[in-house]
Amino acid sequence: MCTGLTLTTNDGYHLFGRSMDIEYSFNQSPLFIPRNFTWNNVVTKDINKIKYAILGMGTMMEGHPMMADAFNEKGLACAGLNFPGYASYEENIIDGKINIGPYDLILWVLSNFEKVSEVKEALGNLNIVSVPFSQSTPLPTLHWIVYDKNDDCIVIEKVKGKLNVYDNKIGILTNSPTFDWHITNLRQYMGLTSTQPPEAIWHKQELIPLGQGLGLCGLPGDFSPASRFVRTSYFKSHIALNKDELSGVTAFFHILANVSMVGGSVVTPANLNDITLYKSSMCLEKGTYYYNTYYNNQITIINMHNEDLDASEVKVFPYRDVQSIYYEN
Amino acid sequence: MCTGLTLTTNDGYHLFGRSMDIEYSFNQSPLFIPRNFTWNNVVTKDINKIKYAILGMGTMMEGHPMMADAFNEKGLACAGLNFPGYASYEENIIDGKINIGPYDLILWVLSNFEKVSEVKEALGNLNIVSVPFSQSTPLPTLHWIVYDKNDDCIVIEKVKGKLNVYDNKIGILTNSPTFDWHITNLRQYMGLTSTQPPEAIWHKQELIPLGQGLGLCGLPGDFSPASRFVRTSYFKSHIALNKDELSGVTAFFHILANVSMVGGSVVTPANLNDITLYKSSMCLEKGTYYYNTYYNNQITIINMHNEDLDASEVKVFPYRDVQSIYYEN
Amino acid sequence: MCTGLTLTTNDGYHLFGRSMDIEYSFNQSPLFIPRNFTWNNVVTKDINKIKYAILGMGTMMEGHPMMADAFNEKGLACAGLNFPGYASYEENIIDGKINIGPYDLILWVLSNFEKVSEVKEALGNLNIVSVPFSQSTPLPTLHWIVYDKNDDCIVIEKVKGKLNVYDNKIGILTNSPTFDWHITNLRQYMGLTSTQPPEAIWHKQELIPLGQGLGLCGLPGDFSPASRFVRTSYFKSHIALNKDELSGVTAFFHILANVSMVGGSVVTPANLNDITLYKSSMCLEKGTYYYNTYYNNQITIINMHNEDLDASEVKVFPYRDVQSIYYEN
Amino acid sequence: MCTGLTLTTNDGYHLFGRSMDIEYSFNQSPLFIPRNFTWNNVVTKDINKIKYAILGMGTMMEGHPMMADAFNEKGLACAGLNFPGYASYEENIIDGKINIGPYDLILWVLSNFEKVSEVKEALGNLNIVSVPFSQSTPLPTLHWIVYDKNDDCIVIEKVKGKLNVYDNKIGILTNSPTFDWHITNLRQYMGLTSTQPPEAIWHKQELIPLGQGLGLCGLPGDFSPASRFVRTSYFKSHIALNKDELSGVTAFFHILANVSMVGGSVVTPANLNDITLYKSSMCLEKGTYYYNTYYNNQITIINMHNEDLDASEVKVFPYRDVQSIYYEN
Repeated sequence: MCTGLTLTTNDGYHLFGRSMDIEYSFNQSPLFIPRNFTWNNVVTKDINKIKYAILGMGTMMEGHPMMADAFNEKGLACAGLNFPGYASYEENIIDGKINIGPYDLILWVLSNFEKVSEVKEALGNLNIVSVPFSQSTPLPTLHWIVYDKNDDCIVIEKVKGKLNVYDNKIGILTNSPTFDWHITNLRQYMGLTSTQPPEAIWHKQELIPLGQGLGLCGLPGDFSPASRFVRTSYFKSHIALNKDELSGVTAFFHILANVSMVGGSVVTPANLNDITLYKSSMCLEKGTYYYNTYYNNQITIINMHNEDLDASEVKVFPYRDVQSIYYEN
Repeated sequence: MCTGLTLTTNDGYHLFGRSMDIEYSFNQSPLFIPRNFTWNNVVTKDINKIKYAILGMGTMMEGHPMMADAFNEKGLACAGLNFPGYASYEENIIDGKINIGPYDLILWVLSNFEKVSEVKEALGNLNIVSVPFSQSTPLPTLHWIVYDKNDDCIVIEKVKGKLNVYDNKIGILTNSPTFDWHITNLRQYMGLTSTQPPEAIWHKQELIPLGQGLGLCGLPGDFSPASRFVRTSYFKSHIALNKDELSGVTAFFHILANVSMVGGSVVTPANLNDITLYKSSMCLEKGTYYYNTYYNNQITIINMHNEDLDASEVKVFPYRDVQSIYYEN
Repeated sequence: MCTGLTLTTNDGYHLFGRSMDIEYSFNQSPLFIPRNFTWNNVVTKDINKIKYAILGMGTMMEGHPMMADAFNEKGLACAGLNFPGYASYEENIIDGKINIGPYDLILWVLSNFEKVSEVKEALGNLNIVSVPFSQSTPLPTLHWIVYDKNDDCIVIEKVKGKLNVYDNKIGILTNSPTFDWHITNLRQYMGLTSTQPPEAIWHKQELIPLGQGLGLCGLPGDFSPASRFVRTSYFKSHIALNKDELSGVTAFFHILANVSMVGGSVVTPANLNDITLYKSSMCLEKGTYYYNTYYNNQITIINMHNEDLDASEVKVFPYRDVQSIYYEN
Repeated sequence: MCTGLTLTTNDGYHLFGRSMDIEYSFNQSPLFIPRNFTWNNVVTKDINKIKYAILGMGTMMEGHPMMADAFNEKGLACAGLNFPGYASYEENIIDGKINIGPYDLILWVLSNFEKVSEVKEALGNLNIVSVPFSQSTPLPTLHWIVYDKNDDCIVIEKVKGKLNVYDNKIGILTNSPTFDWHITNLRQYMGLTSTQPPEAIWHKQELIPLGQGLGLCGLPGDFSPASRFVRTSYFKSHIALNKDELSGVTAFFHILANVSMVGGSVVTPANLNDITLYKSSMCLEKGTYYYNTYYNNQITIINMHNEDLDASEVKVFPYRDVQSIYYEN
């Protein structure tokens, strides 16, 4: 399970990122995909050129970059989040359409477009096909959040017989059920407030607030997709201390920390610990990818503009998962 | 508002720490107090010698260390947490008793004792007096959590006319109301579980869990002291991935991250943002103090055994509050 | 706001009914509509014959019965519940279709069909038109629950450009949002249980349940449509003491009592008290209509088989809204 | 488990009553105890005279009235509610004190006093002793709510080594834990409101309330003592439509209906259904006792002034537990 988040800083930067909640490692690392890299479409066997350089988190499988969340040099960003029980792809290739597997949607979006409006238009011609990447790789069940520097955001959900594209005005995505359900669910919680209720008298009993924070009484604290959607939406839309890129990234990580899974709090049916493997935040204007991991609190940054955008090979960065502590003495 | 936490790692280390939730800085820094430091009792004007070296977070006021959370070389630890509406100190000095101000309780505990059982005994002779540290410093309204290497833990609450000492079997403290209220409150939430509910049929409607984590449905998500106590207690008592000192400290920070305040989520009556200023974790066996801050995710460590235990002056370490990022490229 | 409920007794009777939550009286009474009554279709001006006698709660407007909830002699039942923000009818009459106003849907359903399967088939030919009953009567914004003696249940929702018909496997309806949203929402609460959690130890703290009923911790207690849907669904699907018609009706009223609005608990923007005006329960096999009201706890029963089914005029029964107390001495 | 409630009508009548939640019948009936009845103190073998006539619900055991809830001719009322895990009586009789068993506290209070202030004074001399009524009758674990026509209300709790008397300013009692815990718990919920939250925009997402009643989001819906205390307190202190004796009694029953247990919703460890056996409401000024039962919605009334106050024998009224329906046709 995962949470996708977008945030605009007070001085106008656009941040995009996610938490990755999962009970195992998928061999993820930061990947840089330069402009001259070409990739094979698994479904059609076509060879595709990258138009725009891409930076994000993913894994290389047989020379093919499988991205979990990434953005391109134009400031378009995309992440795939688990969508079990709803994601349903087409059986057949359709001639005249762009046919891709779900694992390649991020690559297709980021290598071709500059902004959300272009993606929306192109989606009419897209056919997501249920062809697995390889025999040993089960088809992922995903939906996607796409974001750009205009604060435009959409959600793409391929359900049985339909490709739904939602305008995402809150700029949040979690997991099942469908995006529109979550938006409706927010309306249950719209009375929440960051301010303290005033002192009250119920019959003749004076009531004084117990500590700070009682205006959020009713906010659900579990890690279900619905609860994470509510919490993230509330915190994002009430965020403070979000002035510039750095404080914005800091705020971004604080929001995601609230919905991050503590080891042991959620145990899967196979008795594995569902944890927040990593959290990422990208500044679309700056070309910077920030992340930290379950085992390493320190944030690592990669700047795509410090790389050769015109290279032809994917660059795999180390995944910094060892607690990097500052030794004061 | 704050959360105090204790945790035992699988290999037997004892961790103690807290989150500091507050709407302003109190000029805090890590402080090392060596054995030959002496301090003035504000209430009695007596001069006191430190028996055991102390490391923790605090602030120096007129040469006097005011500690928020700390531990000593023997592995005894103590933290003070806000206790508004309940904390009530004595008006008068009592001859034959140890008379101190509430701001000095941590110093008194850590400079004199090796373990919780000794503190419990000594508390019978303690008189906490409502003498402010100075004219410009209002009296803090505190209660305290004390912890040692035997996993013994107590809470000290000075309320109107009474000094209550509670055995703290869960090893958690937040804020008002009194500790025993919180323990009773846990019993409302004892049906929570980390495992997923099984598929069910209600009348003829099949129900399949929505994502992972539904066993925690009902867990409160707000930042009130009661909700933080419940969440921290649940996570601590169900913690996984807690093998050794480092993974334990990591788990410790994850638990506290869940109850950490995101800027904007709680706004005080004076319209200030209540945030989690810092989070700390001390390994009682190792003499190590770990912390990170609202603006700096990286954990900083200070080891008291790298200092001169027999020095006579308090050493003030820098408070590392600037985002320390690892630059990958 | 309202709650629609269906229930099967252990000995096989089918009960159907609702609570009517509203901030004013709509001049409602039990109405009996015999077989030889004819009604004018407001939209088309056609005169329609009743095929099956009908009994239920409604109001006579200019000789026209406006039903809120009712059933017919064949054991088909239907109720209309408020569906604000979603209900959207067609602008235009369509030739060749059955064109009716939303206030006449119950009358159309119950005067023409014997069971849910027939209604489902006929709905393909239905056009619900936004023609108000009269100039002074605003168009109601409704969706409908239909139920029969086979325990078949559907929900009819006319939303923008679409008539949605849902199989209602839980047999519950409340208000907005759409029915499918509520069914998905139940999946958040599927871990609830009527049994007590076992004693537990969190770290070293023993926890003993506080009273009975802790397995329902997390059940929402407010009166929003979503919360009433969850509670009613849980209670219906876990009902006990439901042996025969009478105990079933008793259980039925207990379920609805739990979601009934106490005066003062919900105040509308116009500062009126939203209360549960009445609760009804019909036994489809017996032809009996049971109801009680906000001001009268005693249940009143009307049996359609005690009336002349072949009459031609609507019979209006008194609305028994005065507390009818049994005087013991 | 049970809920005790007090309510003042707009025109100044004082109502007192309770719901009785239990998984079995205790052979209860309305009992009238006249002035010339005498009773044996089981503990001391003394014979006691009744000063004031009493009316309430109870059961006769070997000629001894065991009251669950009752009031006297002077308008003093008292009810006993289950208090498991906390109630703890004295082992020994104390000479010079009034020694009674817990099952006789209501009788002692109502047969001797006119108002709460008198009871408070007398309690200093009371010793509640753990002598069972008979070998086959286990000692009940109770606490008590006492109320009078001045709207004065207290709670009496005999816990280990202490008799606590609390002023009950909210006028509510449920079950364990202790009364003061529940009052503190209300402070978690003091932000709840009967009014609808205004439309909001979270980031760019417009949010419109879903139906009425969203101001109560966060109100717990389960049947634990804590949740029933919160709901009853909220509804009582926000009650409307409470003008006179009859509408007040009606409102009273509505409040209790909200916390009444639906069969099947709570199942005891012995697999029995915990249900609300009956609900009562007494008008202290009028001498009237109103009640209805799980199986009979109609309210039955008994007026003590229609009885011979100077009689010497307890009068046992029938317990009206069969659904008494009004047949319209």
